[in-house]
Amino acid sequence: MAHVLGQNQYGKAETRVVRIYRDSTRHEIKDLNVSVALSGDLDDVHLTGSNAHCLPTDTTKNTVYAFAKEHGIESAEAFGVHLARHFVDNNEPIHRARIRIEEYAWDRIRTPDNSARFIGSEEVGHSFVRSGGEIRTAQITYDGDSFQVISGLKELTVMNSTNSEFWGYIKDKYTTLKEAYDRVLATEVTARWAHSWSGAGDQPNWERSYTHVRRHLLEAFAETYSYSLQQTLHAMGSRVLNNRAEVDEVRLELPNKHHFLVDLEPFGLKNNNEVYFAADRPYGLIEGTVHREGVVPVIPVA
Amino acid sequence: MAHVLGQNQYGKAETRVVRIYRDSTRHEIKDLNVSVALSGDLDDVHLTGSNAHCLPTDTTKNTVYAFAKEHGIESAEAFGVHLARHFVDNNEPIHRARIRIEEYAWDRIRTPDNSARFIGSEEVGHSFVRSGGEIRTAQITYDGDSFQVISGLKELTVMNSTNSEFWGYIKDKYTTLKEAYDRVLATEVTARWAHSWSGAGDQPNWERSYTHVRRHLLEAFAETYSYSLQQTLHAMGSRVLNNRAEVDEVRLELPNKHHFLVDLEPFGLKNNNEVYFAADRPYGLIEGTVHREGVVPVIPVA
Amino acid sequence: MAHVLGQNQYGKAETRVVRIYRDSTRHEIKDLNVSVALSGDLDDVHLTGSNAHCLPTDTTKNTVYAFAKEHGIESAEAFGVHLARHFVDNNEPIHRARIRIEEYAWDRIRTPDNSARFIGSEEVGHSFVRSGGEIRTAQITYDGDSFQVISGLKELTVMNSTNSEFWGYIKDKYTTLKEAYDRVLATEVTARWAHSWSGAGDQPNWERSYTHVRRHLLEAFAETYSYSLQQTLHAMGSRVLNNRAEVDEVRLELPNKHHFLVDLEPFGLKNNNEVYFAADRPYGLIEGTVHREGVVPVIPVA
Amino acid sequence: MAHVLGQNQYGKAETRVVRIYRDSTRHEIKDLNVSVALSGDLDDVHLTGSNAHCLPTDTTKNTVYAFAKEHGIESAEAFGVHLARHFVDNNEPIHRARIRIEEYAWDRIRTPDNSARFIGSEEVGHSFVRSGGEIRTAQITYDGDSFQVISGLKELTVMNSTNSEFWGYIKDKYTTLKEAYDRVLATEVTARWAHSWSGAGDQPNWERSYTHVRRHLLEAFAETYSYSLQQTLHAMGSRVLNNRAEVDEVRLELPNKHHFLVDLEPFGLKNNNEVYFAADRPYGLIEGTVHREGVVPVIPVA
Repeated sequence: MAHVLGQNQYGKAETRVVRIYRDSTRHEIKDLNVSVALSGDLDDVHLTGSNAHCLPTDTTKNTVYAFAKEHGIESAEAFGVHLARHFVDNNEPIHRARIRIEEYAWDRIRTPDNSARFIGSEEVGHSFVRSGGEIRTAQITYDGDSFQVISGLKELTVMNSTNSEFWGYIKDKYTTLKEAYDRVLATEVTARWAHSWSGAGDQPNWERSYTHVRRHLLEAFAETYSYSLQQTLHAMGSRVLNNRAEVDEVRLELPNKHHFLVDLEPFGLKNNNEVYFAADRPYGLIEGTVHREGVVPVIPVA
Repeated sequence: MAHVLGQNQYGKAETRVVRIYRDSTRHEIKDLNVSVALSGDLDDVHLTGSNAHCLPTDTTKNTVYAFAKEHGIESAEAFGVHLARHFVDNNEPIHRARIRIEEYAWDRIRTPDNSARFIGSEEVGHSFVRSGGEIRTAQITYDGDSFQVISGLKELTVMNSTNSEFWGYIKDKYTTLKEAYDRVLATEVTARWAHSWSGAGDQPNWERSYTHVRRHLLEAFAETYSYSLQQTLHAMGSRVLNNRAEVDEVRLELPNKHHFLVDLEPFGLKNNNEVYFAADRPYGLIEGTVHREGVVPVIPVA
Repeated sequence: MAHVLGQNQYGKAETRVVRIYRDSTRHEIKDLNVSVALSGDLDDVHLTGSNAHCLPTDTTKNTVYAFAKEHGIESAEAFGVHLARHFVDNNEPIHRARIRIEEYAWDRIRTPDNSARFIGSEEVGHSFVRSGGEIRTAQITYDGDSFQVISGLKELTVMNSTNSEFWGYIKDKYTTLKEAYDRVLATEVTARWAHSWSGAGDQPNWERSYTHVRRHLLEAFAETYSYSLQQTLHAMGSRVLNNRAEVDEVRLELPNKHHFLVDLEPFGLKNNNEVYFAADRPYGLIEGTVHREGVVPVIPVA
Repeated sequence: MAHVLGQNQYGKAETRVVRIYRDSTRHEIKDLNVSVALSGDLDDVHLTGSNAHCLPTDTTKNTVYAFAKEHGIESAEAFGVHLARHFVDNNEPIHRARIRIEEYAWDRIRTPDNSARFIGSEEVGHSFVRSGGEIRTAQITYDGDSFQVISGLKELTVMNSTNSEFWGYIKDKYTTLKEAYDRVLATEVTARWAHSWSGAGDQPNWERSYTHVRRHLLEAFAETYSYSLQQTLHAMGSRVLNNRAEVDEVRLELPNKHHFLVDLEPFGLKNNNEVYFAADRPYGLIEGTVHREGVVPVIPVA
């Protein structure tokens, strides 16, 4: 039976570009990891040995560096829009570009203000410490016609030490879990959210949008009295849609980082929800999308 | 604007189960990492705090262990079929189950045959060394009606030290890459292939099918004179479809593990394709699907 | 030729214990990863099959959990002192205990103060977000007689975008590096520092000591005009010894996280120290100890 | 109180060099990860900003590449001896060089012999698949006078499905572990062994030595009826010393990769040592040295 070439894409992955702005003694930095994936009229590259339609991955890497100079990096999203548009609009065989970006945040190092030692503090304009916490993500796709922008974050680990229950679930012959009326709820948030902007009009203020979406996710996690991690997931996604008009869809992947109460009775001790074992594997994994009515979801399922 | 709950799924991820068969002094072992994802009538779990439709992830974990005893683990695929069918057929609110499995292979430790020391060797029936090399993967999905089985492997690293060229590609203002007429080609293969079996009739011999698909991938990589990694990808996928009737679709993800020729001229030395720097990042990433004509591809794009 | 059993040690590694204090609605948490290594009169355990002198690693794990309840976790160091003393003082064959601890920090999640929305903010007493940034470390060793405490941190990534030079070094036939008069200097700090306290008198205030040592490391990195990473290392270690009387020795491991200036000239662009490639491997690795005169260094070389 | 500079070292870490030999159509490859650490008269580099005694880490990297061409890579150990001697003998301020090497093994890809398809097979002279399994290690230290060579391996995972017991240990108030009379014993072997060769006379046949030491480690693991992992450790080390005259000392680090029997009774099933949960953390960690009498151990304790 004959076979055909299906979906395919290629490009340079994980180009690590750091852009420094030195307009004053107070430097600014942007630290990105950029992955390019191009699709189009590429049958010959796969079938005949002709690379006439192939823009080398090395060139996509060079373009990332050159654009960091030519356009600067205002935000990961805006940088991705520049790149995606360039690859499609300037290479006839390339019909679609998908740019994925990770961004690592840096804080300024502060040293004591000498005029007020141990009270005020002064930032050192060229010294930075990596923020840790979450990694910011962005995915920009362009097909020559319109853009699709999905912002996100990952590795944001949160914990509620109370206000979480889990009971009333299905019991079958393989059930041993005891119902819980006060448990620890911890998860490492991976979130992606799709913007309604598709190329027409001004781009949203991506930096401001990110700050607020992140804040709403944290607040919803903290303020929700939870009967399941699913319920918390829904509260987090809804909170974003209720507050950020530029966002149409939110998808969350929430591993349940189990904290099991240690049985201290063999040692003559009572564990009043004080001592927990933080387990690695296995872990519950809860995934879900919340989107505006009438909008077709675009964020891929992992 | 109102919003709605979209695609969602949940289950226990990464249950590490080891099954030992002790029918003789020659033990057999199966070593799996099993992840369960269930979908269905789960709106209430997200919206109202009722868990009446929720089979706890803890129970899905218990079921993995119990089935390892009740059904044994003939193959990752057959084990996943048991699990997926169970979750959907025995829980009215669960309409779809997806089981993902990683399998780690073990070889037998052999010791010298005492009757012919240093010539023959004798396996120790209860002693094993982990094979390293690739990890085998399987994904089994069941919706109450039919099955979809995707087998695969990852972390299979291969290298051709010659018979690879790359030239004749697009040149633009960002091009600096020099054409190569004899380069090293190395990649870490991630492959997935979809089987035509969907539940009717006997299951394929999964173990035998795996052995042959893996062999064809390796042989195609070794025997293809390559003008691009895309061409090698297509040759690998085609080879499988041409030789294995039970497979309908192959998807490959091939990072180009760049080996750059080191410039030794500053040291008065000539590098005749002998000394290479093995780079980490960035790397080219080539992905593609080959499928039988008329078949709708089912393997998700990463 | 006869052989003998040399240095040996054993214990449970990586016990993940989380301790929650619920004395008010403002909870406190301590999140540790504890590894125990015991040595002593253990020849029989290795040689004869007798475990009469072996305290099982499972018991050392249980002890970690029980002590989290019985003694609480005031600091990683104080907790390690409790554990080390217990193992040696209560098990005749155990002559030495070494406790290694990693501590993960958590910040409180704050939500807008409703009475002053978007101006003030209110912490949620039971909701936390993991701090990211560095991991705090501690090693406590006890031999029945005295204690040795080594505090530390790792994964603290810092960058100076200027005030770093490197020139005037040895040139030989393998030299190609160009001298640099304004380079980016970035490193991921691993630091360990030994305390003079050895068991007599009150323990130092470990939490306060840590906060100040960390601050001095950051300040010295930021304020040092650097001619080599070695010079920066020495400045960081010296700064700690000059300011913290309780510390006798500092050891630093500083990988040079190279940021290479990208050559943009092929694209007709000038790179005024603006666009860098952040490299992974290889990397320079600079290690060194600074200690008080007359003190015998105790921190092991990696 | 005055402070001084103590132990310090520096160099380029993780230079990834691949050497290909193309003397016939049957290519040979060596794939190494080389880390250099130099010590000596380096006070000024740390204290004054003068780099006059500093051989840049970039130059040590270049030397690795140049030596791969000039000397070839016969074995990791012989390559390290070349490098260490060079750095010390050719740079007056450098008094000591320590070279650490990881080696990744590759197998040849074989394809069916066309003249006897599916019976014989034919290797493809330029096609390789990475072996997986263990990583080989070597550490070579030279102080201008003599050499110290420590060979080793890591990530060699082994399992015995029977012939392991653990009982008769200390019981205290924190003991809950039940004695085991037939358990699974699994570990991921890290082994290092020191050679007696110190520079005089011919070097040992490093490749042959490695093959045999590895074999003895595996055989001792498989053939030892074990009452503790300590006992297995001692048997493994002793076996090497009893059989390999060129080795003076063996150090082993053996994490106990716990396989816990799953309790299937709640499901009405009996677990006859058939179904296990492979745990991640915490894990027992057993470390120990066996050395010839009268020899001073040199392998550092982790």
